[in-house]
Amino acid sequence: MKREIYKGKVVHLFVESVTLPNATTIDMEVVRHPGAAAVVPLLENGKVVLIRQYRYATGGYLYEIPAGKLSDGEPPETCAVRETEEETGWHIGRLDKLTTIFTAPGFCDEQIHLYLGTKLTRSRQQLDPDEVLEVVELPFDDAIQKIDDQIICDAKSVVALQLAYTRKTLS
Amino acid sequence: MKREIYKGKVVHLFVESVTLPNATTIDMEVVRHPGAAAVVPLLENGKVVLIRQYRYATGGYLYEIPAGKLSDGEPPETCAVRETEEETGWHIGRLDKLTTIFTAPGFCDEQIHLYLGTKLTRSRQQLDPDEVLEVVELPFDDAIQKIDDQIICDAKSVVALQLAYTRKTLS
Repeated sequence: MKREIYKGKVVHLFVESVTLPNATTIDMEVVRHPGAAAVVPLLENGKVVLIRQYRYATGGYLYEIPAGKLSDGEPPETCAVRETEEETGWHIGRLDKLTTIFTAPGFCDEQIHLYLGTKLTRSRQQLDPDEVLEVVELPFDDAIQKIDDQIICDAKSVVALQLAYTRKTLS
Repeated sequence: MKREIYKGKVVHLFVESVTLPNATTIDMEVVRHPGAAAVVPLLENGKVVLIRQYRYATGGYLYEIPAGKLSDGEPPETCAVRETEEETGWHIGRLDKLTTIFTAPGFCDEQIHLYLGTKLTRSRQQLDPDEVLEVVELPFDDAIQKIDDQIICDAKSVVALQLAYTRKTLS
């Protein structure tokens, strides 16, 4: 049994009666999410394109990789290219899949598909009124150092930057 | 202005009227979370202690590091040791901080404090009725390979395993 508690712009909350594999039946709170895509955009000069974005929920600005929710039926790759272009003004010519992560499996079904983006060309930034961010280009080594220094602390961004860096270092 | 929509066992949902730094005023949906702690428990034989946990929201079992929500006023370090013991039956003698991540900053204030745990001694597993999991001990290299193979795909676990592995490799 599934009861809808709230349907907002972002959060779609249900309470669902669930029988677990151990035969315990409980009510679970589940936030249903359309999924998202995110990209490490890597320039030919070796810099990565990050955004420094205002995040109300966390109380300030966070360094992140460009990312966004999938539109209805939108393939993750299309979303990845679209969101990077809208947020950073860079068009991505090539995407390589890094992985797909669950962000908060205890209460939310959100999956984020992560990519390395290369063959970048200049395009035009188009921010929504509720997006407050600046674009920051950083040498890849500096971005990795900022993870170690606990300055880059957004989960999807840490995962994607580390996977992309390892691949780049190995190749 | 802040309106409480729902207060459950896990999810505490608000809709808040927010004026952004660009002077736009909007309603934001925010899930308020007490925060959490998670640990990469590393045995002296070089294996890491993971759990394979049933996660209803994601539709199946996920490999994760032991983790749990902070109890009222509980320091993250206490929570990290407690949850590892409850979930895996290993007591941690030493914690080293890795970083703190935001898991879903678009709509949730959840922070997870991540640690490397060493000096492990046997204790007793104590699962809650709603916890369905098995303990899995893996060579550290195998765990890192499972990230690359997209088998370990829980965000906090990927971040913590990668940071812990880098530190171990460098030391």
